[in-house]
Amino acid sequence: MSNTTASIITIGDELLIGQTIDTNSAWIAQKLNVLGIDVIRRLAVKDNFQAIWNALDEERRLSELIFITGGLGPTSDDITKPLLCKYFGGQMIVDTTVLNHIKRIFERLKRPVIERNLKQAEVPDNCRVLFNRMGTAPGMWFEDQGNVFVAMPGVPFEMMAIMEDGVLPELEKRVCNSALIHKTVVTAGEGESFIAERLVAFEAALPSNVNLAYLPDTSIVRIRLTGRGDDKTIVENQLELLQKSLVEKLGNIVVATEDIPMEKVLANALIPINKTIGIAESCTGGFIGHAITQIPGASSYFAGSIVSYDNRIKEQILGVKPATLVQFGAVSEQTATEMARGALHVLGVDFALATTGVLGPGGGTDKVDVGTVWMAVANSERIITRMFRFRYDRQRNKEQAAKMGMLLLWKFITGRI
Amino acid sequence: MSNTTASIITIGDELLIGQTIDTNSAWIAQKLNVLGIDVIRRLAVKDNFQAIWNALDEERRLSELIFITGGLGPTSDDITKPLLCKYFGGQMIVDTTVLNHIKRIFERLKRPVIERNLKQAEVPDNCRVLFNRMGTAPGMWFEDQGNVFVAMPGVPFEMMAIMEDGVLPELEKRVCNSALIHKTVVTAGEGESFIAERLVAFEAALPSNVNLAYLPDTSIVRIRLTGRGDDKTIVENQLELLQKSLVEKLGNIVVATEDIPMEKVLANALIPINKTIGIAESCTGGFIGHAITQIPGASSYFAGSIVSYDNRIKEQILGVKPATLVQFGAVSEQTATEMARGALHVLGVDFALATTGVLGPGGGTDKVDVGTVWMAVANSERIITRMFRFRYDRQRNKEQAAKMGMLLLWKFITGRI
Repeated sequence: MSNTTASIITIGDELLIGQTIDTNSAWIAQKLNVLGIDVIRRLAVKDNFQAIWNALDEERRLSELIFITGGLGPTSDDITKPLLCKYFGGQMIVDTTVLNHIKRIFERLKRPVIERNLKQAEVPDNCRVLFNRMGTAPGMWFEDQGNVFVAMPGVPFEMMAIMEDGVLPELEKRVCNSALIHKTVVTAGEGESFIAERLVAFEAALPSNVNLAYLPDTSIVRIRLTGRGDDKTIVENQLELLQKSLVEKLGNIVVATEDIPMEKVLANALIPINKTIGIAESCTGGFIGHAITQIPGASSYFAGSIVSYDNRIKEQILGVKPATLVQFGAVSEQTATEMARGALHVLGVDFALATTGVLGPGGGTDKVDVGTVWMAVANSERIITRMFRFRYDRQRNKEQAAKMGMLLLWKFITGRI
Repeated sequence: MSNTTASIITIGDELLIGQTIDTNSAWIAQKLNVLGIDVIRRLAVKDNFQAIWNALDEERRLSELIFITGGLGPTSDDITKPLLCKYFGGQMIVDTTVLNHIKRIFERLKRPVIERNLKQAEVPDNCRVLFNRMGTAPGMWFEDQGNVFVAMPGVPFEMMAIMEDGVLPELEKRVCNSALIHKTVVTAGEGESFIAERLVAFEAALPSNVNLAYLPDTSIVRIRLTGRGDDKTIVENQLELLQKSLVEKLGNIVVATEDIPMEKVLANALIPINKTIGIAESCTGGFIGHAITQIPGASSYFAGSIVSYDNRIKEQILGVKPATLVQFGAVSEQTATEMARGALHVLGVDFALATTGVLGPGGGTDKVDVGTVWMAVANSERIITRMFRFRYDRQRNKEQAAKMGMLLLWKFITGRI
């Protein structure tokens, strides 16, 4: 019943001084998870020979598969390839497939190939070369004393292409098929500890092969059930029943029964009823439009967004009355209401959402605290307004406002408010 | 001359199955860096007693300071606090300051305090409690055999508040003040290997206390100089001269001489000349407006964005001619041109940028490949168009398109095109 284990080693000073956020590890972990491979550790080390060498020694003792990203670029701060060659006792040779690929890339770019790029065609003779259709640096697959080591460049789309083309299909053939299944319930409007309180008996009664985890993100809490077993169908059925019982227990706070973001929840509500939405954004600056258009096919229900950052745009395009702005201010229930009505009209949609607020760090007044956001949702028959107070930094306040705005719109559309 | 070293341990299954991207580590590393503390390793482990215990043993051998995030919430998947208590040989006691803080939070929320939350006021008696003004779980500061261990909750804004209130001020007092200084040059329009080629002699001539690193992000490459030394002023002066020489060598591809994103580059160009901008977005869906409004004070130069996802909005609000859409299609030079002209007019701004494209995964036609984006930048006197081909996934294509759009706008505003 034990799964294949994996470690991810990311190499690069930029990850350790905080200039780059590691998104590769999460992507790799998700893909491995589907195959029933457990990522048990993730380690980031510097572009330093000894630190990388020690990391390889360390992780191979703990995991069967070792994924290495970064340190394979053409510039001199990249030392991983010669290190791997030495670690596995090989010699560097030129790979003609990679060489021709590099030459073709530079031909297409109409640029001369320089020595530095040709060097990328050199690989250790004791690895299987993993072709990189997205860039010049090839990936490498080493096997040594029962461990598999996969080294890939750190550029995300190059790493992804190598994983999809050469690594995941090979792993799928190899891993023993013990099942690891996740089911998620997304909730909104109730804190982690209150949900946990409601689920004490449920948790206590969980079978030993199933775990429950809370993944809180302010007012949205995802609850994840993880089941393991030898037989995929049995675990799948078991988790399905548990998820159903979880949904019954949690009732009206359940937003989705799969691990999807609010924009997808919204899509799932709109497509079957064939209705359209539009947004009037002030403080969120376009973030809600952006979130909604992350979903492929959003054009079937999303008409657009009027980002009316300047009050002049609120008046001229959305038709907010100058008197409203003077009397109540841009951040007010009245302005949000007129913005939503204006968006309904000017975008010609069935439902509209409007946001106006002060996200910080500055911009507060004696009437409006930093973090205050007024929202309105409307259709041709009714309009509902809400005030929120966000207390984080500018970026996080924006994300939270977008999430709460989409949640409000979803509740309105589905008749929950 | 050696700096204080630190490791960051992040605890949580959600980080290892890829449901959560670790943004905490980058933030912590940036803050420590300013104090001259080197993060040399970052390790993510599961919510598992033995794995956490081993990680503590492991990192304390390599680093002086150990930062631990995650695993301190109120629910049963959080095991870190009792583990730390045992690891340092303490007893759990109730901290009355934390207890009163928790009670006040729940009073304000008008909710009863439940047992689970009261438990959060329990702390090991051998730690210094770090007050958490943003939430219920306190941080903890342990000292043991020459190592300092700081444990904090994983919720980003709670961790940040604890670091700022209790951790960073204390560290600043303690660390020996050897200097670690970074200077960055941001470039656009030239690949990493070509830049490296131009800098061969420069790199070879770098003094031994200075490193150079390339941080490529497609067509934007940041070049970072890192200098170390005993005297801050000397290293600062040394790096300033080196940065100046770097800028001279790289000439017109230099976009900024500090580590700032494109939206800040744009802000720096617009504020001194007192001009305004507006956007007409189709495929980018609001992302450019979002990026621009990440900068506090953007309202002084950013009027707004018309997210015209539906062609109807392109016609009705931006004034794109129906015949243009029929004859050339929505993704065309002609449509981008009319969108930019429309944005100039309807938003009443000095400069406008328009984007229209197909970001994928679907939506390609026999005339327009997936990844094609047409852009136009205009003022009242002239208009310039460009076509881009992005070849990544939807999200990344959108980010790249936004970055290239802002770069194009910046070049236009500053007279580079």
